[in-house]
Amino acid sequence: MSQATNQSWGGRFSEPTDAFVERFTASVSFDQRLAAQDIRGSMAHATMLARVGVLTDDEREAIVTGLSEIRDEIERGEFQWSVPLEDVHMNIEARLTDKIGITGKKLHTGRSRNDQVATDIRLFMRDAIDAIEVELIRLREGMVALADREADTIMPGFTHLQTAQPVTFGHHLLAWQEMLARDHERLLDCRKRVNVMPLGAAALAGTTYPIDRHVTAELLGFNRPAENSLDAVSDRDFAIEFVSFASILLMHMSRMSEELVLWTSAQFDFIDLPDRFCTGSSIMPQKKNPDVPELVRGKTGRVYGHLMGLLTLMKSQPLAYNKDNQEDKEPLFDAVDTVGDCLKAFADMVPAIEPKKVNMFEAARKGFSTATDLADYLVRKGVAFRDAHEIVGESVAYGLKEEKDLSEMSLDELRQFSQVIESDVFEVLTLEGSVAARNHIGGTAPDQVRAAAQRAREALAVLKDQA
Amino acid sequence: MSQATNQSWGGRFSEPTDAFVERFTASVSFDQRLAAQDIRGSMAHATMLARVGVLTDDEREAIVTGLSEIRDEIERGEFQWSVPLEDVHMNIEARLTDKIGITGKKLHTGRSRNDQVATDIRLFMRDAIDAIEVELIRLREGMVALADREADTIMPGFTHLQTAQPVTFGHHLLAWQEMLARDHERLLDCRKRVNVMPLGAAALAGTTYPIDRHVTAELLGFNRPAENSLDAVSDRDFAIEFVSFASILLMHMSRMSEELVLWTSAQFDFIDLPDRFCTGSSIMPQKKNPDVPELVRGKTGRVYGHLMGLLTLMKSQPLAYNKDNQEDKEPLFDAVDTVGDCLKAFADMVPAIEPKKVNMFEAARKGFSTATDLADYLVRKGVAFRDAHEIVGESVAYGLKEEKDLSEMSLDELRQFSQVIESDVFEVLTLEGSVAARNHIGGTAPDQVRAAAQRAREALAVLKDQA
Amino acid sequence: MSQATNQSWGGRFSEPTDAFVERFTASVSFDQRLAAQDIRGSMAHATMLARVGVLTDDEREAIVTGLSEIRDEIERGEFQWSVPLEDVHMNIEARLTDKIGITGKKLHTGRSRNDQVATDIRLFMRDAIDAIEVELIRLREGMVALADREADTIMPGFTHLQTAQPVTFGHHLLAWQEMLARDHERLLDCRKRVNVMPLGAAALAGTTYPIDRHVTAELLGFNRPAENSLDAVSDRDFAIEFVSFASILLMHMSRMSEELVLWTSAQFDFIDLPDRFCTGSSIMPQKKNPDVPELVRGKTGRVYGHLMGLLTLMKSQPLAYNKDNQEDKEPLFDAVDTVGDCLKAFADMVPAIEPKKVNMFEAARKGFSTATDLADYLVRKGVAFRDAHEIVGESVAYGLKEEKDLSEMSLDELRQFSQVIESDVFEVLTLEGSVAARNHIGGTAPDQVRAAAQRAREALAVLKDQA
Amino acid sequence: MSQATNQSWGGRFSEPTDAFVERFTASVSFDQRLAAQDIRGSMAHATMLARVGVLTDDEREAIVTGLSEIRDEIERGEFQWSVPLEDVHMNIEARLTDKIGITGKKLHTGRSRNDQVATDIRLFMRDAIDAIEVELIRLREGMVALADREADTIMPGFTHLQTAQPVTFGHHLLAWQEMLARDHERLLDCRKRVNVMPLGAAALAGTTYPIDRHVTAELLGFNRPAENSLDAVSDRDFAIEFVSFASILLMHMSRMSEELVLWTSAQFDFIDLPDRFCTGSSIMPQKKNPDVPELVRGKTGRVYGHLMGLLTLMKSQPLAYNKDNQEDKEPLFDAVDTVGDCLKAFADMVPAIEPKKVNMFEAARKGFSTATDLADYLVRKGVAFRDAHEIVGESVAYGLKEEKDLSEMSLDELRQFSQVIESDVFEVLTLEGSVAARNHIGGTAPDQVRAAAQRAREALAVLKDQA
Repeated sequence: MSQATNQSWGGRFSEPTDAFVERFTASVSFDQRLAAQDIRGSMAHATMLARVGVLTDDEREAIVTGLSEIRDEIERGEFQWSVPLEDVHMNIEARLTDKIGITGKKLHTGRSRNDQVATDIRLFMRDAIDAIEVELIRLREGMVALADREADTIMPGFTHLQTAQPVTFGHHLLAWQEMLARDHERLLDCRKRVNVMPLGAAALAGTTYPIDRHVTAELLGFNRPAENSLDAVSDRDFAIEFVSFASILLMHMSRMSEELVLWTSAQFDFIDLPDRFCTGSSIMPQKKNPDVPELVRGKTGRVYGHLMGLLTLMKSQPLAYNKDNQEDKEPLFDAVDTVGDCLKAFADMVPAIEPKKVNMFEAARKGFSTATDLADYLVRKGVAFRDAHEIVGESVAYGLKEEKDLSEMSLDELRQFSQVIESDVFEVLTLEGSVAARNHIGGTAPDQVRAAAQRAREALAVLKDQA
Repeated sequence: MSQATNQSWGGRFSEPTDAFVERFTASVSFDQRLAAQDIRGSMAHATMLARVGVLTDDEREAIVTGLSEIRDEIERGEFQWSVPLEDVHMNIEARLTDKIGITGKKLHTGRSRNDQVATDIRLFMRDAIDAIEVELIRLREGMVALADREADTIMPGFTHLQTAQPVTFGHHLLAWQEMLARDHERLLDCRKRVNVMPLGAAALAGTTYPIDRHVTAELLGFNRPAENSLDAVSDRDFAIEFVSFASILLMHMSRMSEELVLWTSAQFDFIDLPDRFCTGSSIMPQKKNPDVPELVRGKTGRVYGHLMGLLTLMKSQPLAYNKDNQEDKEPLFDAVDTVGDCLKAFADMVPAIEPKKVNMFEAARKGFSTATDLADYLVRKGVAFRDAHEIVGESVAYGLKEEKDLSEMSLDELRQFSQVIESDVFEVLTLEGSVAARNHIGGTAPDQVRAAAQRAREALAVLKDQA
Repeated sequence: MSQATNQSWGGRFSEPTDAFVERFTASVSFDQRLAAQDIRGSMAHATMLARVGVLTDDEREAIVTGLSEIRDEIERGEFQWSVPLEDVHMNIEARLTDKIGITGKKLHTGRSRNDQVATDIRLFMRDAIDAIEVELIRLREGMVALADREADTIMPGFTHLQTAQPVTFGHHLLAWQEMLARDHERLLDCRKRVNVMPLGAAALAGTTYPIDRHVTAELLGFNRPAENSLDAVSDRDFAIEFVSFASILLMHMSRMSEELVLWTSAQFDFIDLPDRFCTGSSIMPQKKNPDVPELVRGKTGRVYGHLMGLLTLMKSQPLAYNKDNQEDKEPLFDAVDTVGDCLKAFADMVPAIEPKKVNMFEAARKGFSTATDLADYLVRKGVAFRDAHEIVGESVAYGLKEEKDLSEMSLDELRQFSQVIESDVFEVLTLEGSVAARNHIGGTAPDQVRAAAQRAREALAVLKDQA
Repeated sequence: MSQATNQSWGGRFSEPTDAFVERFTASVSFDQRLAAQDIRGSMAHATMLARVGVLTDDEREAIVTGLSEIRDEIERGEFQWSVPLEDVHMNIEARLTDKIGITGKKLHTGRSRNDQVATDIRLFMRDAIDAIEVELIRLREGMVALADREADTIMPGFTHLQTAQPVTFGHHLLAWQEMLARDHERLLDCRKRVNVMPLGAAALAGTTYPIDRHVTAELLGFNRPAENSLDAVSDRDFAIEFVSFASILLMHMSRMSEELVLWTSAQFDFIDLPDRFCTGSSIMPQKKNPDVPELVRGKTGRVYGHLMGLLTLMKSQPLAYNKDNQEDKEPLFDAVDTVGDCLKAFADMVPAIEPKKVNMFEAARKGFSTATDLADYLVRKGVAFRDAHEIVGESVAYGLKEEKDLSEMSLDELRQFSQVIESDVFEVLTLEGSVAARNHIGGTAPDQVRAAAQRAREALAVLKDQA
């Protein structure tokens, strides 16, 4: 049994908390991560209370000074966290009262731990989102720069992992970048909903003190106070929305990772990743493993899991705050860390990808990748598309048998399948001709890739200005 | 073995598709739901092709007329869907060629099923989102109206399902409404990202035909063409984002449902649901079961499941299109239907909720729900908050022993615990006094509830104008 | 409003069910799939009621005959399902009463829809499990036979998708088979818990009729009656356990699918899949897409989603039956169908896989796949393992620079890195030598593969006998 | 950049690992938890190597002694874990080599980190399962004892959270116990599949050293060596199966928790939880919150999330080991801890539940809970069940209007609805009569509850003997 039972609610109780239960229900081991936000929120709350006359200026001054000192203690690693004091809030308040006496007890006037923790998490999330945005921009910039550089580099485009049509490596990288651009939008949309202030909701119904929530909201940089106290303390949809953003982002990164792993295999051999992003094997001396993309791909599961965990957590909870909600923090913190780490790893690694251009080109040359171009050629000569498709299908069947790519067949061989084929056909059967011909917005033509890269750069510049 | 092997790609193949495989891989049983969108997209595509000279005006006319007739056949239920033709696209195109001959085969010029299906789904989702928004607005309006009507109705507010403080029923309903307001925002944010046009991406790389994607986008009401062809045919993040919206919405509705189920129990007995939203028991004649909220609560699982299914589907897929993506439709369709049905059920039911005001009031009167008010009273008399908390804790312990609520104790009994208590204490111990005192934005005071309802009504009016 | 409001519980109600609510809450559109089980259960129930004297033999006879006829009507597709009658149970009972009059109403004596539906689902699941086991055995047998045939076929083994060590194709196939063997165990473990009878639990508490649950259990082939009535009608853990089995199975199949897709790519080119398991492209005439494995991989998401859906469904439900549970059927049915179809597709396809042995062998020859063998050689010559690892690492670095595999270096070149290397080194650097040397249980040596295949065949024979 | 790049694979690399990448890819921060298992496995491996002559007895002796010392260092908290050494395996091996010189390097002969970590996890899981079983048995025993004690305590049974029929509290507790009994079976089924030894699979293909895997398996208490090396190092289905067990268990515990929370509410007021399992409010002095069940209910999300995370992790991974798999440990460890803590919390708390028998009885008396008994009475008097149901429905409608329970109506009032009702009806309308009449296996009659408790006690005794 704990001697130091939490003094914030002990009055009604006839029996101290069971020691195991105390540890089981305490959150301080993980919510101490909110200390900086908790202190920031308390300072603003004290300032507001002084503004409306609930605290004197001297009391406010003592509180703010005491909290500053506590913040320094925490930063220096000197703060003694206590499990019997349950959580970050009571730990800090108890220390404040140690330091400044009875005035410390007045800080909690007009608020509750319910609105306090909701405020802390939102401040934390806002900080996290802003830090994540920095890495996301860095990654997007790296991708765009690489795409621009590789606008002319030809590689096979795949569907069903079968060679489909030649594309440019720059175009492929911009596909990745587009995914991230939407993730970026989702992040900023989420930020709007995060940046709303629960403080003032108190336990669930608001408070009888003459608080001014607009003042506190302004001091803390929130867009506005939350509209409804019951909702403010009980909902965590903003956390779910963030982890949903994170899940889609990791889904995208798992796709990039899958491709990086494929491309570094001996069979594809399309790129080199610098040694510093790889590790080796304790038993197979020749191995150079693409650990970073593999690990990012693996971390997708972690983030999906947190999404499902938070959705489950909130399912069917009656209003308002329930203890269940304590379980919101660990998945959220881990999702924040995972997203940050994965973006950082990619932002470092992507610009260092070295395409093996010859291998890419040779792979595109095989596999009848210009078959569609032949079909389009036939259509331009007046053949209906579906008929052209069949003619080319027969040419491919012939090529498979004879082990010849379309561009390697003679005119006579090609004319077996259609008499409209003439010697100008060989222009469309080159890879360069094929990619250059897809020359419209969104197409793989090098000029389009460069123009798209330019648009992306401009969009990023605007976002950086706003960030 | 199927005789009618799909003519769109048969040329290369030496062996027909296995009959089971044909059924296993076909999607027409579910993607026929996209027929209207498929036809709309094809009409716009044909019009664009005519505009740029790939089709003649006569060809366009024949195609559009043929497609109109097919649309009518489908609407009348006369269209013969064929599994060997695999999907909605090939079924419609084959019928078009039946009708108008070789010109029908030209419709597919400059596109692929990959960009076609991505376009169809986005058109479908846009329609679905707009229909969902109508029901969502209707539900929100019903809630706001009921909240306004019940702004003075007192009920217990709960935390940890323990009586916490009195709130008003109107305030509680507005908490629900706030959740939906954020869901509404998420829906519209999602719509922005849905409304981008893949068409023109063709199989994966764009096309060699001189298409004008801005024309098609405008004809179909898309904001803009997608920026990258590889991305346009391969990503489904917009579908995940929609189901993520749906999951959060259903999470919210599961919470409302949980409360409705609690409130209709004999133990709470806070509300009546009209018989038309309930069903009975085949064995227990006295039962009146709150089926609608129970079922909505249950359907939360379905939607969460679809979210997890789609996230799993997309994990680690290399670019561009893979057959896996065929699995995107069923969960998406079911999520759309579930969201629409649940919203409709609630939009019908919520305005018909009949609060049992006496029961609510009596429940609030018990359970020491004004204990916080007593603590606040003590603070106003100069007691530090934490000390006041302890004083009230002792009063409550006494009340539990004596089976008396705070408002039922005599002044002498109350003064056992603190000498600062005077006869004015009884004003703060009434429920009406308690709720009225929480009079700041977000608080439960009836005036605040009415003001919040008014703000919500105005916000909804703006949204309806924009919808 | 429905005229035909469900007669099974209408007495207490003053208002008919809303028409939309009727459709929203009805389950007959999907639970009619339980008709055969429902009838089987009703026949056994009637027989038991006659045995204990609650029904006369004539009544039992009339019921059983009537139910037989109804079963035939359903099988012939002539049964008229009615949504106002809500579910499969009431539809069948109403038809029975049509047919045999008031005696039909006696069938429901001593049971409730709560125990009835729980019984139906368990009978359905038992049938489904048995059908799935048949396909699973067929697939395992096909894998074992192919593995045995390919026990000597050398291919590269991968870790991190990097060439690691040579293995045999037979060994790789047996790795798949081991996964399935565990899935098979899980299926049978699940069956044990499925095969327990809820009937007799009635609505939730048992019944006052003198039923004999052991009789009914025996008639229906259940292992035993469920021990607790509240539990029997309210839990669905057996359904979750089944979908958990299905999720792990599909996880395994997604891994096999991923490999099949890789192996059919132009870059790997390790196998051919017969045309009948593939489809083509509407735009790219050369494509032959591995649709079956792609689709199976995609269906993983569907099954994972159902698992999450069912877990969510059951979370926090108070005892006993709640309407939420109606949502158990669709995911369960779909999981059953998906598992059955995927197993059937694989059982057909796997034996038809054609390895391209030359390509596999050549791929294994590259990539320093015998580097570990060289290290082991050095250890046998007295070098400590970690030192040997470094020596080989340097040899590989040299080989990368000189573009030579280890087996292509001269003795002098190899001796640059260690003087203990002698001419016998070339024996261990061959692929055949490498695989043959891993000659212990679980190792890739052809003899071990054949022995493992034999053990698997014997285990399967035992399982078939028991099935 | 790290100076201390991992010596186990550095030879091939030209550039040290990036410092962030080193931290990002290292696992030692969490896999050090496997240290005891890693050492146990290494000791057995060394012993086997000596047995087959790969090590001398002196070498084995030095290794075992060194490892013992390291184990002590770790237990005393004196071991210096190093991130550049990546993981628990390399940390321990490096320390061993520090201690005993070059012989330490020989320990890794014939194995790889791939089979080593798979073995460690399985040893860890086996230990965890055994510890979990102890708590599970303790909880089940506590439930059975309480159920036996409360076999006669009457409470309302609910369906749809509406009063359905009277049940006994003992019967309700045994419903919980049945859920746990199945969870227990699943745990033991999972243990069978956990307890299979990967060691000897080496990196992926087995080893060229003359190892004897049966010896190692026996030394480590495994049932048998894994049959296939590729499978042994790459699959994690046993981990998923465990977390699936854990998810179903937590689902069950979330249901119990939901009921405990309901029952401690002022509205139900069915039980008291001792203060030591509850906490208070920092703002509302009267609150006593059922924190333990709320938190357990919340932790359901955490475990579901881990299940989804692991399923996602493994989806589509090609064989054999990939770095993704490193992500298996944290969710597994957390699932183990969560299950252990939740079981411990419940095993402590459940026996301390104090039913408020009067409240339970009064709640059962209201709500027409004996309506089914009246219907059954009518049937025994010759009324067809469905007709009886309607008669009772009308009686209930009357009772609602007149605010009378069935047992409170006069004989005349009852006979309004059916002339077959006579004065003996009042026997069946009592709660005691109602529960006693459900007297068959699985029914709620007190005698049945006591018999079921006895059977459960016997089954538990057998399990304890086997554990």
